[in-house]
Amino acid sequence: MDFDKVLREKTKAVEAVIRAYAPEEIGLYKTVCQAMNYSLLAGGKRLRPMLMEETWRLFGGEDAALIRPFMAAIEMIHTYSLIHDDLPALDNDDYRRGKKTSHKVFGEAMAILAGDGLQGYAYETACKAMDAAKDEGQLGRVARALRVLAVKPGLTGMLGGQVVDVEMEGKPISKEVLDFIHERKTSALIECAMMIGAILAGANAAETAVIEEAARKVGLAFQIQDDILDVTSSLEVLGKPVHSDEKNEKTTYVSIMGIEKASGQVEKLSGEALSLIDGLRETGGYENPFLGELLKALIHRKK
Amino acid sequence: MDFDKVLREKTKAVEAVIRAYAPEEIGLYKTVCQAMNYSLLAGGKRLRPMLMEETWRLFGGEDAALIRPFMAAIEMIHTYSLIHDDLPALDNDDYRRGKKTSHKVFGEAMAILAGDGLQGYAYETACKAMDAAKDEGQLGRVARALRVLAVKPGLTGMLGGQVVDVEMEGKPISKEVLDFIHERKTSALIECAMMIGAILAGANAAETAVIEEAARKVGLAFQIQDDILDVTSSLEVLGKPVHSDEKNEKTTYVSIMGIEKASGQVEKLSGEALSLIDGLRETGGYENPFLGELLKALIHRKK
Repeated sequence: MDFDKVLREKTKAVEAVIRAYAPEEIGLYKTVCQAMNYSLLAGGKRLRPMLMEETWRLFGGEDAALIRPFMAAIEMIHTYSLIHDDLPALDNDDYRRGKKTSHKVFGEAMAILAGDGLQGYAYETACKAMDAAKDEGQLGRVARALRVLAVKPGLTGMLGGQVVDVEMEGKPISKEVLDFIHERKTSALIECAMMIGAILAGANAAETAVIEEAARKVGLAFQIQDDILDVTSSLEVLGKPVHSDEKNEKTTYVSIMGIEKASGQVEKLSGEALSLIDGLRETGGYENPFLGELLKALIHRKK
Repeated sequence: MDFDKVLREKTKAVEAVIRAYAPEEIGLYKTVCQAMNYSLLAGGKRLRPMLMEETWRLFGGEDAALIRPFMAAIEMIHTYSLIHDDLPALDNDDYRRGKKTSHKVFGEAMAILAGDGLQGYAYETACKAMDAAKDEGQLGRVARALRVLAVKPGLTGMLGGQVVDVEMEGKPISKEVLDFIHERKTSALIECAMMIGAILAGANAAETAVIEEAARKVGLAFQIQDDILDVTSSLEVLGKPVHSDEKNEKTTYVSIMGIEKASGQVEKLSGEALSLIDGLRETGGYENPFLGELLKALIHRKK
């Protein structure tokens, strides 16, 4: 398998799905649609919808009409959180992925509304999967997937992590609190993506729980690698300023345990995640070699 | 029927439902729960959940376990929109219902996150109705109700109206645009509430469409009455400053058509709404005298 080539093709395919469900820029409220799409269609790795689709393939998912609305929906949730995180009252960032942030282009009022709009439109979009449900069984899967899409980005998930991150700004924090923040800010949406993929493909509760645990570890490993790259990479390779955590006096895994131990943690967590997924081959015959390669590439990435 | 007494009792019962589903103020993210509840439990007429429940009764709704999560959810959506509307970048209001607005108490960052949290928690709460569904038929109703809860507050509904309202600020607007704004800012959530009540009680598509149209008219009549009261009432009766629209140079139904014609519109729209609901008695035998009284009281209210 030429991993890089396959990854490029798959990213392109995911991009097309997101574009197909993006709001049309029409009507008296066109401006907010433009603001929503400015951020939603700004590129990126499209990690969450891709992990959703590959987990769905792992469990032998067949009906793409069921999963496509959810792939777009999770990217809408991710994008809403980025728009609101960048606002002056929160991180006050002017740039994201080399483009001006939403409030810098559309003003603060429209950026707030664009974020609100994307959160709501995520549920509206995911509900379109109901049209594709062929029987009551499939409708039940869609309902369970909707529930995961409502819980994981919320209070006990992504939003809860964001709240603690905001409140702890400038304060020294322990490894436990750092884990708490990142298990929510980073892992919760990865759990959300992979669990929805599993549920829509027909995985049972025990299998979905294995995926949830693997995704939690993937999210943490991903975040620790992020902290490492901020110290060891360069602007040229990373495409964004390095040493930003140090400058912002941010507590990171590297500042708490040093680079060597942090790298060890990445190895440990990613190994455990891959074993969990490998175990599904043994117990249920589920296999997706690309998913394994993708997870390795994400965790050991250099940018 | 002692309408006022029954209304007080029903409002108390709705209040208890909302309280039962409000987030617990625990964990490291306790602050955002406190901010969510500060606004969610600040009182008010509880119009939307009450209209939802009374429409559900109209169609002979029996299983309250199915509708209660949705009653709390629609008030969460309404509250999220109020918190974000009050933000400095939008209406910049310091007070709401005689209490300081969210950002005045919790700061702007936490107010943004509390609004985001309530929007998400509305879907998380509504999904709890899935646990109460006794068979596939009831699960199907919950799914259709969820979809209405996703669409009506969104881009083509409440949020779209808010966007146009923000963009038109300080500009002269036509009756058509004013209708566009209020059919979305006000009517959309009333349509949402009453349609969900109908769907969960088992109303068919044609009956639900009648309710949608009646709710649209109720919402417009309610808004026009609001504009009239701003001119004709007093601070003492209304409990908020009068003549605020004039001061803010806001285009209203009164500024466009004068008080007399505006009052005529309230009569016309409310009469049409009540006839539509009355018609359901003739075609399907559906009756709820309290719902009729409630709509009349809302539309002809003096405060």
